[in-house]
Amino acid sequence: MSFFPATLENLIDKFASLPGIGRKSAQRLAFYLLSLPDSEAQAFADAVVAAKTNVHCCKICQNLTEGEVCSICSSDRRDRSTICVVSEPRDVLSIERGHEYNGLYHVLHGVLSPMSHVGPDDIRIKELLQRVADDEVEEVIMATNPDTEGEATAMYISRLLKPFNIRVTRLAYGIPVGSNLEFADDATLNRAIEGRTEM
Amino acid sequence: MSFFPATLENLIDKFASLPGIGRKSAQRLAFYLLSLPDSEAQAFADAVVAAKTNVHCCKICQNLTEGEVCSICSSDRRDRSTICVVSEPRDVLSIERGHEYNGLYHVLHGVLSPMSHVGPDDIRIKELLQRVADDEVEEVIMATNPDTEGEATAMYISRLLKPFNIRVTRLAYGIPVGSNLEFADDATLNRAIEGRTEM
Repeated sequence: MSFFPATLENLIDKFASLPGIGRKSAQRLAFYLLSLPDSEAQAFADAVVAAKTNVHCCKICQNLTEGEVCSICSSDRRDRSTICVVSEPRDVLSIERGHEYNGLYHVLHGVLSPMSHVGPDDIRIKELLQRVADDEVEEVIMATNPDTEGEATAMYISRLLKPFNIRVTRLAYGIPVGSNLEFADDATLNRAIEGRTEM
Repeated sequence: MSFFPATLENLIDKFASLPGIGRKSAQRLAFYLLSLPDSEAQAFADAVVAAKTNVHCCKICQNLTEGEVCSICSSDRRDRSTICVVSEPRDVLSIERGHEYNGLYHVLHGVLSPMSHVGPDDIRIKELLQRVADDEVEEVIMATNPDTEGEATAMYISRLLKPFNIRVTRLAYGIPVGSNLEFADDATLNRAIEGRTEM
């Protein structure tokens, strides 16, 4: 038996359905929202609907945007000959934070995962091939995560890109800057040795 | 500079303003909501508004309810001579989970905290005194948290209750059931020794 009113219980359920939010956290969040002034709780609800209504995928790179084409694809300061392929929109942010990369992106919105029934048609691979065929692309950088599924996806796409006769590269593996050899795992250390560079 | 569309950025801000949710978690939650079907995102927003609109405080015990009086206060199976005073609605749930207590509750909605400018008029103490004055209350159990502010609040209220000539009790301190003496802190152990009972 629950001792919370039904609408409160429903709100707790909604929060608990979000990833990484357990029952206790969901309760805390729901109580917090109830403690806010009406206008702020309403603003929270409005933010959910507004984001869901206005945000969609850029028709070129599939990154999230409010316009038809995202700010990166429409910028004339970006190098249009390079496409960096990432699995999620948040990965674009991670790479942009480095202020090093100046090319375009392509967001796959997922990775190939036979276990979760995600096949090539479920992520935006077709759109990538189309871009490579149409535009003056010279290099595609595969920047999916360095885990099994990310690797497999990068491998799969790089094979599809072979016929286009362009450069296909992968992010370098190695020890993270500022970290400690002692805490690096074997696989990472081995990759760091393999990929060693001249000083 | 942000690379997310404004409405998405706004949704992330809203999530990040919730307690215990950092910037990264807020991003993850916002992306998750965007990935839901329209109807589910709308249901989430509706849940926030519905809870905020329908849930208010029970006019007797100040616990959260949708009706005028909560299910505990309106139940004829509860012992009306005992009131358990807690600081937050979630504390009612904690005590109810034990299936041991059968009296009524009083939710203070906070604790006295000079540091955060919370004084006696900011929490529901007046309503408690009113209940004790009006009803046939025989015992008030102070069940605020065993921290400095909870203690001070319990002490303050117990003094206000003195003139009513009723029993005022406090939850027992001691070592938690199933725990290990080795990990009990000094203060808890001392209280456990002070409060020792005959076997």
